[in-house]
Amino acid sequence: MATHPFDEALELSPGDAGTLTGKTSPDWANMVGPFGGMTAATLLRAVEVQPERLGHPVALTVNFTAPVADGAFDVRATAVRTNRSNQHWSVELSQDGEIKTTATAVFGHRRDTWADIERQRPPAPGPEEVPAEGLPEAIVWARNYDMRHVDGAPPLDGQPRPSSASTLWVRDSRGRAMDYAALTAFSDIFYPRVYRRLGAPLPAGTISMTAYFHADAPEIASVGDDFILGRAQANRFAGGYFDQSAELWSRSGDLLATTHQLVYFKT
Amino acid sequence: MATHPFDEALELSPGDAGTLTGKTSPDWANMVGPFGGMTAATLLRAVEVQPERLGHPVALTVNFTAPVADGAFDVRATAVRTNRSNQHWSVELSQDGEIKTTATAVFGHRRDTWADIERQRPPAPGPEEVPAEGLPEAIVWARNYDMRHVDGAPPLDGQPRPSSASTLWVRDSRGRAMDYAALTAFSDIFYPRVYRRLGAPLPAGTISMTAYFHADAPEIASVGDDFILGRAQANRFAGGYFDQSAELWSRSGDLLATTHQLVYFKT
Repeated sequence: MATHPFDEALELSPGDAGTLTGKTSPDWANMVGPFGGMTAATLLRAVEVQPERLGHPVALTVNFTAPVADGAFDVRATAVRTNRSNQHWSVELSQDGEIKTTATAVFGHRRDTWADIERQRPPAPGPEEVPAEGLPEAIVWARNYDMRHVDGAPPLDGQPRPSSASTLWVRDSRGRAMDYAALTAFSDIFYPRVYRRLGAPLPAGTISMTAYFHADAPEIASVGDDFILGRAQANRFAGGYFDQSAELWSRSGDLLATTHQLVYFKT
Repeated sequence: MATHPFDEALELSPGDAGTLTGKTSPDWANMVGPFGGMTAATLLRAVEVQPERLGHPVALTVNFTAPVADGAFDVRATAVRTNRSNQHWSVELSQDGEIKTTATAVFGHRRDTWADIERQRPPAPGPEEVPAEGLPEAIVWARNYDMRHVDGAPPLDGQPRPSSASTLWVRDSRGRAMDYAALTAFSDIFYPRVYRRLGAPLPAGTISMTAYFHADAPEIASVGDDFILGRAQANRFAGGYFDQSAELWSRSGDLLATTHQLVYFKT
């Protein structure tokens, strides 16, 4: 069986002096370099494969410092601190010795505690009732996903909108099962919120992205290849930057992750 | 004139081999070690004082890897990447060679672009109409702030609440003017949301905190020593962790910053 394109792009081999080496995949191409969600997933995976890794992902921040060029890259993951129930990591992706992406990650054990989902899931009809309407075909990486916008599909009419919010069902188009790496990539599937406000695409790119993983491993596994519901909205646009807050829900109503990002844009 | 306690705690002196040295201040003591907001502000300041620093803060993520002990500490700020309009930093706080806090920061120039505050400011009466009701006197660092809870004051009655939200006016109690370091500290002033849900304090601590700075320098300066309006709410509590999303507003209606954190707790 052929390897799934997501797993192919995630593949890391042991390199020199504790580094891992990987390479970009044409299946995950974005306007400049690879889809940021794929890069973020790769940095998370670089921690997951470490023998001394403790528990599962809890928090991840990825900083996109420079565009990743097509081709090979090196990743170095360093355990900064190991506590009894959590562990802090620092990760760097470089090409020819130049740092292109950095990340910090918190991994940890989950314990049985009082629990509650306080956030309300956005109302949405089931994915079967929503037409498959995703991003334009020109966005190569988006072909890997079956996206169904409940509201806030990419604007094609040049009309500004009063709200930047989008709600969509999304799943891997080839049925790859959910895991933390996939959830990391899903955290970055929302097109830039400024497109919606101004009614047209314009230069924009994520500078820093943070994901908080709420789901434990059994909950992640129970998603399987089903749709998840995503919702994203910006809070403020100013001085060439805006932020986006987003949430990712399982069909059964679990808040799998909350995720935030800071994006630059030009008008 | 005596130095303000915030500036005293922020003070960094040149140390060996490019490090800066500082020391914790008894005025900013928390349950274990100093107030995390003060530590976060110190790491931001460590970048602000670098001669090659470009522009002003845009995004900051601070990871609290281990408790900071009372006393001296070293801070090392490294410019990871300088682009035309932004710059990525990595910062480490250590004591006796042991890393206690790490951070990544994005600084950048702000440009004149289309702008909008999409988020709605929470409704609140003016701070003069709200009684000064803050955190219990035992929380030493909180004495530095004049806090006025519009809703969601710390629960003292042992009763669980259906919502973790708190809205409060807050300002420096001695009239120190706003700057990016102060705004960083304000990002962490909210008591742990799980207290409110369960109606009582319990062991809890921030693991990772991210702040997105929306205000430019003139907007920050125009706040002066006035109250700002803060609102914080959790999204999900599970497995011994919860997240909090918060916003900080000027009285005149500008969204100064949005800020998120991942907190561990025990029940």
